[in-house]
Amino acid sequence: MSVYLEDLAVGQAYESGTFAVTADGIKTFAQEFDPQPFHLDEEAAKGTIFAGLAASGWYTASLTMRLLVTGHLHIAGGLVGAGVEEIRWPRPVRPGDVLRARSEVVSVRTSQSKPDRGIVQLRTTTLNQDEQVVQIMIANLIVPRRPAAP
Amino acid sequence: MSVYLEDLAVGQAYESGTFAVTADGIKTFAQEFDPQPFHLDEEAAKGTIFAGLAASGWYTASLTMRLLVTGHLHIAGGLVGAGVEEIRWPRPVRPGDVLRARSEVVSVRTSQSKPDRGIVQLRTTTLNQDEQVVQIMIANLIVPRRPAAP
Repeated sequence: MSVYLEDLAVGQAYESGTFAVTADGIKTFAQEFDPQPFHLDEEAAKGTIFAGLAASGWYTASLTMRLLVTGHLHIAGGLVGAGVEEIRWPRPVRPGDVLRARSEVVSVRTSQSKPDRGIVQLRTTTLNQDEQVVQIMIANLIVPRRPAAP
Repeated sequence: MSVYLEDLAVGQAYESGTFAVTADGIKTFAQEFDPQPFHLDEEAAKGTIFAGLAASGWYTASLTMRLLVTGHLHIAGGLVGAGVEEIRWPRPVRPGDVLRARSEVVSVRTSQSKPDRGIVQLRTTTLNQDEQVVQIMIANLIVPRRPAAP
């Protein structure tokens, strides 16, 4: 069932499925988008700030989007971001981590300029298998209002 | 030459190379990370908020990281993000767009808790071939201080 602006309220929470991160996945993403030693090669990563192979923060962010899109929040018209207020990466994602995302509605408001939609602020925490937070993101979504009955 | 905290000052600017976006690139990223109709298929995208195939914002963000990492700002120890303060996507990236990134140093401060490093705030604007802004990002980088001479 598609969710409209009227269906969302502050405090509502959603939990995603899981995604198992591999060394290959970390390296493949890095080769294309973030080719730095600590994301590309176990040996080269040892002497760096990460002290071992670590996922690019953009891989973590992209995997979080995958978890959201394939998860339980089915917004009418899709998950369309109006922007991001904040991303934090309190600890790196490592090979073998199993990620999942927990989202909570922070605010809901109707648009002043476009009365057919609103903006929903969602706080999404990405966790690993040990319940450690690997990413916190606050993002604004564009959500349509429910069309009037014909 | 590697750049240390002492080498950076407010207002310094950097420009990246370019990256040509293709429909295939948009779809391949979306299949893995953001499988929604407006990022996957030209026909399905027509009736959506994007009115045509558009890149995932996370593809735009990841390509911007690629432009930064392969560009002219060579920070000692690599480009390591402490977090993102803001991302805006004022217009979608379309097939055929040629992107480049312009970064400017917003602030430079030494860490209170870790005196061997500092935090540099960088404002990065991603532009298309028509000088239209497709992404604005404000991010904090961890930058090492220059080691004392032996």
